[in-house]
Amino acid sequence: MKRGFIIPIGGAEEKLREPAILKRFAKLCGGKSARIAVIPTASQLKDTGQRYETYFKEIGVGEVRSLPFEERGDAKREDLVNWLELCDGAFLTGGNQLRLSTTLGGTPAAKILRKRNEGGMHIAGTSAGAAFLSEHMIAFGEEGSTPHADSVTLAPGLGLTNRVIVDQHFRQRDRIGRLLSAISYNPYAIGLGLDEDTAGFIGPDETLTVVGSGGITIVDASDLEYTSMDHASRHQTISLIGIKLHILIDGATFNLHTREARPAASASSSP
Amino acid sequence: MKRGFIIPIGGAEEKLREPAILKRFAKLCGGKSARIAVIPTASQLKDTGQRYETYFKEIGVGEVRSLPFEERGDAKREDLVNWLELCDGAFLTGGNQLRLSTTLGGTPAAKILRKRNEGGMHIAGTSAGAAFLSEHMIAFGEEGSTPHADSVTLAPGLGLTNRVIVDQHFRQRDRIGRLLSAISYNPYAIGLGLDEDTAGFIGPDETLTVVGSGGITIVDASDLEYTSMDHASRHQTISLIGIKLHILIDGATFNLHTREARPAASASSSP
Repeated sequence: MKRGFIIPIGGAEEKLREPAILKRFAKLCGGKSARIAVIPTASQLKDTGQRYETYFKEIGVGEVRSLPFEERGDAKREDLVNWLELCDGAFLTGGNQLRLSTTLGGTPAAKILRKRNEGGMHIAGTSAGAAFLSEHMIAFGEEGSTPHADSVTLAPGLGLTNRVIVDQHFRQRDRIGRLLSAISYNPYAIGLGLDEDTAGFIGPDETLTVVGSGGITIVDASDLEYTSMDHASRHQTISLIGIKLHILIDGATFNLHTREARPAASASSSP
Repeated sequence: MKRGFIIPIGGAEEKLREPAILKRFAKLCGGKSARIAVIPTASQLKDTGQRYETYFKEIGVGEVRSLPFEERGDAKREDLVNWLELCDGAFLTGGNQLRLSTTLGGTPAAKILRKRNEGGMHIAGTSAGAAFLSEHMIAFGEEGSTPHADSVTLAPGLGLTNRVIVDQHFRQRDRIGRLLSAISYNPYAIGLGLDEDTAGFIGPDETLTVVGSGGITIVDASDLEYTSMDHASRHQTISLIGIKLHILIDGATFNLHTREARPAASASSSP
């Protein structure tokens, strides 16, 4: 039994002209025969779920249904939860990731998403939806290039993997400082800084493949030699020695297990 | 004959309450017996030079003189240039680094600054003044976390060292993307991203010591495994695999020769 893909997307993915990320997700789920659930819980806009239904239908997905998990009670409704049992893929929209964790955390819906992903269902999330996928979710934080002890607040997420901590709108909102802070709490996790219109397709073999028009910044602290996190005061800059950083673009891969990055296969240059 | 210190400062250094950076510079130059030249060329404000004269006098510097290099002709004036021959230190203020390079580049004043630094005179620069110190100066660029081929424009600087490329107001203006771009042109140079009120005191032994309230982000691309810089189109995100990153705070050191970072001596933690 192979785990399904875990697909964090940096937000603002292209939807109309050449929706490479949505298309790849749809194809992975089975294309014409795919059954996709949209989970618009993070969004405050009434029509978010419906809009994604339309996008997915336009690229040929067989069946799409938006599941209105608006309150915790909805996440127990059998008609909705049972539909999750039948899907090939689930797509979590953007909005506020704390809406996702507070509404779905500990409910039957969250449990089924985890169980079904283990069993092969693919789960994608964009923006807030991307942040929520991992065990450790960036709830909110400051912007800026330098890490501070209190520049980021983590919260438990959906928990599909604990190997990564995801941040989104990365280039657009200057979030490397808070991602570095998050990673420096425990260097075990790998930081994924996702630009807009850029996704990491994390396969069952723990290989992430980059899809989209921007970049993914990989923060690997496994060789960290020193951190001041444990004795810094709250507002102080955190000192970190020995961070590894990769910036990957469309087609490049990163193995979350071996922590090896590779450029896209067609790319030929090396320094 | 030992080279003098080269001291890039990230801008907005504390001047009144506890001016740690200015004090350390003044002490290095000889304190009460020091003779310091202020070069306010980068600034558009008429009183910048005078203000620094006051700051340095307040912390006990023996002799301070602001040298009004406003046009290229001023940088040949014997009365001003001769004074540079007699100084223990020179301090370049903030403003626009292209004012510095266009006004001083190729003049007797620039030549004397280089020669005297080789012979032991200490040279500090804040903000635009910091950018100008190195051989390769960031003239201007975009802000944001991800590097692009055209996100930064380099220009020849004063040339006290070619080992570093300096960017300033680092955390405050989100400049890691453009620093990564600058470094990816030629991984030989080391990127120094200086937060405000933070300086790197680079000694004659090529050891940089951090002084101030913020951090210095060190970008070391010497182990770069792959870059897409040579074949990327202008607006495309640059892929970089194998960047090393350190964030250093007050008291930490980085050896520009061996590329080794060390935490402050009193710091005791390691991961």
